[in-house]
Amino acid sequence: MSATDTRYMALALTLGRRGQGMCWPNPAVGCVLVNDGRIVGRGWTQPGGRPHAETVALAQAGGLARGATAYVTLEPCAHHGKTPPCCDALIAAGIARVVAPFQDVDARVAGQGFEALRKDGVAVTTGVLADRAAQDHAGFFLRTEQGRPLITLKLANSFDGRIATASGQSQWITGAQARRAVHGMRARHDAVMVGAGTARADDPSLTVRDLGIARQPVRVVVSRHLELPLLGQLARSARDIPLWICHGEAVDGERVKAWQELGATLLPCALDGLRLNAADILAQLGQAGLTRVFCEGGSSLAGSLLAADIVDELVGFTAGLTIGAEGLPAIGALGLDSLEAAPRFELIETRAIGPDILHRWRRAF
Amino acid sequence: MSATDTRYMALALTLGRRGQGMCWPNPAVGCVLVNDGRIVGRGWTQPGGRPHAETVALAQAGGLARGATAYVTLEPCAHHGKTPPCCDALIAAGIARVVAPFQDVDARVAGQGFEALRKDGVAVTTGVLADRAAQDHAGFFLRTEQGRPLITLKLANSFDGRIATASGQSQWITGAQARRAVHGMRARHDAVMVGAGTARADDPSLTVRDLGIARQPVRVVVSRHLELPLLGQLARSARDIPLWICHGEAVDGERVKAWQELGATLLPCALDGLRLNAADILAQLGQAGLTRVFCEGGSSLAGSLLAADIVDELVGFTAGLTIGAEGLPAIGALGLDSLEAAPRFELIETRAIGPDILHRWRRAF
Repeated sequence: MSATDTRYMALALTLGRRGQGMCWPNPAVGCVLVNDGRIVGRGWTQPGGRPHAETVALAQAGGLARGATAYVTLEPCAHHGKTPPCCDALIAAGIARVVAPFQDVDARVAGQGFEALRKDGVAVTTGVLADRAAQDHAGFFLRTEQGRPLITLKLANSFDGRIATASGQSQWITGAQARRAVHGMRARHDAVMVGAGTARADDPSLTVRDLGIARQPVRVVVSRHLELPLLGQLARSARDIPLWICHGEAVDGERVKAWQELGATLLPCALDGLRLNAADILAQLGQAGLTRVFCEGGSSLAGSLLAADIVDELVGFTAGLTIGAEGLPAIGALGLDSLEAAPRFELIETRAIGPDILHRWRRAF
Repeated sequence: MSATDTRYMALALTLGRRGQGMCWPNPAVGCVLVNDGRIVGRGWTQPGGRPHAETVALAQAGGLARGATAYVTLEPCAHHGKTPPCCDALIAAGIARVVAPFQDVDARVAGQGFEALRKDGVAVTTGVLADRAAQDHAGFFLRTEQGRPLITLKLANSFDGRIATASGQSQWITGAQARRAVHGMRARHDAVMVGAGTARADDPSLTVRDLGIARQPVRVVVSRHLELPLLGQLARSARDIPLWICHGEAVDGERVKAWQELGATLLPCALDGLRLNAADILAQLGQAGLTRVFCEGGSSLAGSLLAADIVDELVGFTAGLTIGAEGLPAIGALGLDSLEAAPRFELIETRAIGPDILHRWRRAF
């Protein structure tokens, strides 16, 4: 591993992230082809998951791929899926060396890609920027290994952790820049998820606006009793942009029918006392193919996810205003016995965003 | 005003801040003497308020003060107080030019210092770094003009704005680095203030530790009924480090006597319904000479100060853990009618501090 390898891998990772939110259930991979110190091809997994990053980069490089080094952010596939294996394409193009962070966790790849390459005389280097790549692929890995998507929990609140006044007024606590950043974050996830209370109170559309993206994230609403407004924005747009509703098993048949007719996908989930079981919600979403879910509250759903210890990233937007103890809390009851039991997160970054601050945290293990 | 003037004034301001918390009721002034491009004297108001910054810098410069420029962060005094006027000293030392941000608001100075200097042929430049100087002197100005000290409200809480679990466990939410920074902040204020609930729950000493400071800040406890532990840390140390207690007017005579015997200073304050009136607490503290007060909660006192719109700076330490809605809120009830009525603050800075984040905000006007 050299400084050059690290630099090109960093570029490949940046390219790979462009596909996040667009190519589930496939991983968002990036690829850079370098021949004699010159970048001759760049690619990333395209919307819908195909073509793969390697295919895009090889097409761009043409004959210049011969003798080049391929920087790929995940082990190239060796199996015949919906497309021929990338390994074959790399070998056929005359790639001399492949650099990757680590092997794929997908059992259909899992080292076989590297093996196929080596067998054909392609040099393989692994371990380059493995930590960073593991973060980027965390959703894909979690789904493959644990059957659930990665969860980013975003909360936009006052200095004192309130998301609305006692009377429910919440627009706007944070500024336009923070709200715009939220659209960028939504776009990087496969789905945007809210609880039923938020869906009823805010009547949100949960779409990504003003970013010209190729594929809107799925909208997921968690509503045990399917009590959602049939005339709201979500209902109106369910034919055009996927709307999935996680609900309890014993639910009114008329409501199920009404939502199905509107175009929504219904996902029955297990109960945990009076609430839907957070782990089962995620299992259902993983089963349906999601790798990255962006949850925007409300407090009850946020509390359920945190209590179940399945929040991977916490994103806070904090505004410079105070609402006081009567306001609606950002996070509902967690039922902690002690401070030691509190879910803990490690800081990724904090910075000003317009008049507010953005702070991102990652689950501490 | 030149870039050179700005640079030396920035240095004088930095020096001046060294006196913050040490020289109340006097302003914490800084002074730099520059002769022919060389710094020949530096000074700041000494603990207790004397000698003044100019006196210290002139003593350091000796004969090199002749023909020098004096950068002073506040108009030099022209009146005979406990020390002879600084203007006379500057003139006697042969200072050729004085640079200052603005004139003093103290009626005994208020332009007379500049006038005396000019009359003796000393050139005077004002308006240099006036905004920054106004921030540094905000406490002195507030006391002079409104009779109250500046209030910095510090809250150390979880990601979701909680300062303790439901059972009252609060040690520790933030890390060692944040707690150390709090001691630095206490040292820059004339007094540290808490509510009675915090004094009872935490039994704090409220002193500045491990920083080798010349003068401990006054400890102020707000307790309507004077219900504070007579065997706690505050009681034990009241003879050595000032302890002031703000209480209601109708309070048990035995308790008053007990605390007076322990060495505490009692400040009767007006009531506002069932609570002490926040504005009157500050008026009493201003009357007693304080210019900068650092309030560390708890939620009830924080709520009273915010509701009265007398919090000048808000300091948040936010830890990467979630406590949930059953936890103790950082800020008590504010009784807001709408989001528009919420007290608003402008961001000064946000940064990582150990595992936590620090964010500072200033009152928005």
